[in-house]
Amino acid sequence: MPSDHHPADHAQAQDPAAEHAPPHMSPDEFRALGHRMVDRIADYMRTVESMPVRPRALPGTVLDGLPDAAPETPEPWGDIFADLDSLIVPNLTHWQHPGFFAYFPCNASGPGILGELLSAGLNVNGMLWSTSPAATELETRVLDWCRTLLGLPDAFAGNGVIQGTASESTLIALLAAKSRADAQTPCLITSDQAHSSVIKAAMIAGLASGPDDRSRVHIVRTHPDGSMDLADLRRVADTLLADPDGPQPIMVSGTVGTTGTGAIDDIAGIRLAMDDASRPATGEPWPGWLHIDAAWAGAAAVCPEHRHLLAGAEVADSVCINPHKWLLTNFDCDLFWVRDRSALLDALSITPEYLRNEQTDAGAVIDYRDWQIPLGRRFRALKLWFVLRHYGAEGLRAHIRRHVAWAGWFEQRVAADDRFESVAPNRLALVCFALRADSPDKANAATRDLLARVNETGEVFLSHTASPGSPPSGGRYTIRFTPGATATRFEHVERAWRIISDAADPASR
Amino acid sequence: MPSDHHPADHAQAQDPAAEHAPPHMSPDEFRALGHRMVDRIADYMRTVESMPVRPRALPGTVLDGLPDAAPETPEPWGDIFADLDSLIVPNLTHWQHPGFFAYFPCNASGPGILGELLSAGLNVNGMLWSTSPAATELETRVLDWCRTLLGLPDAFAGNGVIQGTASESTLIALLAAKSRADAQTPCLITSDQAHSSVIKAAMIAGLASGPDDRSRVHIVRTHPDGSMDLADLRRVADTLLADPDGPQPIMVSGTVGTTGTGAIDDIAGIRLAMDDASRPATGEPWPGWLHIDAAWAGAAAVCPEHRHLLAGAEVADSVCINPHKWLLTNFDCDLFWVRDRSALLDALSITPEYLRNEQTDAGAVIDYRDWQIPLGRRFRALKLWFVLRHYGAEGLRAHIRRHVAWAGWFEQRVAADDRFESVAPNRLALVCFALRADSPDKANAATRDLLARVNETGEVFLSHTASPGSPPSGGRYTIRFTPGATATRFEHVERAWRIISDAADPASR
Repeated sequence: MPSDHHPADHAQAQDPAAEHAPPHMSPDEFRALGHRMVDRIADYMRTVESMPVRPRALPGTVLDGLPDAAPETPEPWGDIFADLDSLIVPNLTHWQHPGFFAYFPCNASGPGILGELLSAGLNVNGMLWSTSPAATELETRVLDWCRTLLGLPDAFAGNGVIQGTASESTLIALLAAKSRADAQTPCLITSDQAHSSVIKAAMIAGLASGPDDRSRVHIVRTHPDGSMDLADLRRVADTLLADPDGPQPIMVSGTVGTTGTGAIDDIAGIRLAMDDASRPATGEPWPGWLHIDAAWAGAAAVCPEHRHLLAGAEVADSVCINPHKWLLTNFDCDLFWVRDRSALLDALSITPEYLRNEQTDAGAVIDYRDWQIPLGRRFRALKLWFVLRHYGAEGLRAHIRRHVAWAGWFEQRVAADDRFESVAPNRLALVCFALRADSPDKANAATRDLLARVNETGEVFLSHTASPGSPPSGGRYTIRFTPGATATRFEHVERAWRIISDAADPASR
Repeated sequence: MPSDHHPADHAQAQDPAAEHAPPHMSPDEFRALGHRMVDRIADYMRTVESMPVRPRALPGTVLDGLPDAAPETPEPWGDIFADLDSLIVPNLTHWQHPGFFAYFPCNASGPGILGELLSAGLNVNGMLWSTSPAATELETRVLDWCRTLLGLPDAFAGNGVIQGTASESTLIALLAAKSRADAQTPCLITSDQAHSSVIKAAMIAGLASGPDDRSRVHIVRTHPDGSMDLADLRRVADTLLADPDGPQPIMVSGTVGTTGTGAIDDIAGIRLAMDDASRPATGEPWPGWLHIDAAWAGAAAVCPEHRHLLAGAEVADSVCINPHKWLLTNFDCDLFWVRDRSALLDALSITPEYLRNEQTDAGAVIDYRDWQIPLGRRFRALKLWFVLRHYGAEGLRAHIRRHVAWAGWFEQRVAADDRFESVAPNRLALVCFALRADSPDKANAATRDLLARVNETGEVFLSHTASPGSPPSGGRYTIRFTPGATATRFEHVERAWRIISDAADPASR
């Protein structure tokens, strides 16, 4: 009997830390404050429309409004709530404002918020299957639901994972491509309209010493609409592949829905061009990695009429889309699928003794830590699961379709108004437009002024880009209008057009 | 008057998407469901203790319990809640269970959950100052509060940022080090007890082709307690620095609180050893980057009696600690400070036209996207701010002190019981122990069996490591016991010891 051996152990011991009592919230205190916080968010949903989309804060306003040091003793929640009202909320740019038409919106939703709340409440770390089996397996299943909804090929089945952002997916694709190719001097090809995260990935992975280092990052030109010029790709690839001692292209990063103008690269055409460039040099098709960054536009593939956008996945090695942009799932939630899981694992796996466990050793489970940059991970599948079940596929399609319809309506206003012109074709929910003027310089200045005046109203917020190509035909200052916020209704789209139209008219100034 | 020019624009238009109506939650529906979710979390806080810490699920249990496809139409929340109860929660490893003593715990708290909830409700993307000024400036201020609380040098003031995990901080430190050094063949030095994320960072940054590639990753031996052997470091550094054409050490990653045994590297000694190795070769002190991974142990520096742990920051270039491990802030929240912000920005900045804005162009603000791997970012400063204000510095100190006291109590039990032995000195809240036996092999087998029996009870969950060094003196199968969960009280620590003691006694089997 153990108690015979060690009687002292089994007597009631004195708590050696009895004097140290952190003021943890009791479950009932949490319940009461949690209800208040939920109420505040519900109120915010109703009232955000009455605030300016962007604050008028000067740099330093919030910094100077906060004490220099943390409090020594606990502060009452009344003070915290008061500071939220007076200092924090008024100095936010409100991404959930119905007048937010900038960048690509990050659309929150009720079920998404509830999922993030529950994830925080459970606070499990799903780094390994064994450190929370349900977190891993729900993710695997829900990613497969999404794969089917988006019409992605069976080859990606079971090979999906949630990343924080598309930046991480692109980086991981590059690492997997490097690992699989094992080239002496690997290089990367993308277009001048690809997202900045592609070059950032090259900088992180050691392929570029800075954003302008082009020794191992090759930038293909684009057509005026922003899509990759495949003839230029072919030229770039021919040059690289003709010199087996020089940098070898291990990855092409194509884009379905560029950030600037929403342009769609011809993914199948990219594969074909690379294969055609490879055969004369090696006798084989190109063995490299084709990644699709479909962060924003890929979401539209939940609608059958937009499914063709992701058809290129048939010839791709990886693809990512962001439900946090356009599928009602709170930031952060990027979905990443890979065809060849082993390349990913080769690039990122490392198992110290303190992470070994029976299931991992048996190879019977997925450990998602080997599919990502960090070790630890939140239970993000919950919010995606909630969104999919609350909305159903039909609800998600309605969400996409109304934004596409509204953008089409807006594009018609632009087309019908001879003060304006479309700078790139309307793609899905993105409209790119500018003011006409006698010269490109005047048009740029007038459009820049217009955007400033429009945003100064505080009712709406739009952002800008430079149109694809170089001046004078390209490089134009371009306003981007993209409905995407959950709270946006048609009246806000209409109001946005009226504000823009009024601000564009000199008489109205 | 604009209405004269374009009368059609100002008539009430018909919503072209009237038939597409996604079933968004109204604020009142969100309020009701939000209250229910808060209630569930409050109930979970009370009841988690009655569940097994780890589920008995076999791989596939949850996967097979979920439908093959997403629903076409919305599902009622009653069904979602029912599935949470029957399928998800029972198949989690419960990191918030008071019997969770494994790995390093991830301690949630009421204020931390409220912060994550509010962040999800606001759902702002703080990639740029201008995309939510309050999110940026609250982060800057709160990081400075923490810097002061932890006793970090003034040199880090204003140079703090929240990362997801320490893995990301280590990677970013390495990228900054590479950027600053601009060495032909950069290499990295760390110890055999450093976290696996150091080697993973080298793999990502292109310094290692795999976990075992040692051409540009140099692993210094450790003392039996797990701290870096500075004589061996000196030997490694001398060899590298004597050959200016060979790999040059651009970074040493030191650890304050290793994952295995909680060992503390002598950070000042590392700097001295590197300087001493550099002077004969170059006449100058070593110009490289010294990073401190203090992910777990650094949190203890909120207590004056543990502040010495971070004294090495005086000679370090960067340091990270994880409030999501031991300062009551929900996962994810890693704090990263850097002495030389410009190296970081050189490594990670890239500004496409669509992200340009007045404040960034003026250089008047911090854009945290340039301080991290991804572009987008959640408003994580909220939860840290809530935790600091709810607990106050005193509350955080009490939280640390009780765990340290409990670990000390547990260590005494181990020391007083001749069936057990300490494998490494008790550090802070970590105790490393094993069963004694006639031979190392027998001890390893018996300790492994003991851990399995202890964890099978479902009342507690402990993890293991291999002790520093090689067999027979090192490489021992070692059980790690570390209190850290918010819900843990002394009775759980006592109960854990009783379970271990009973399970160790053959008579009790």
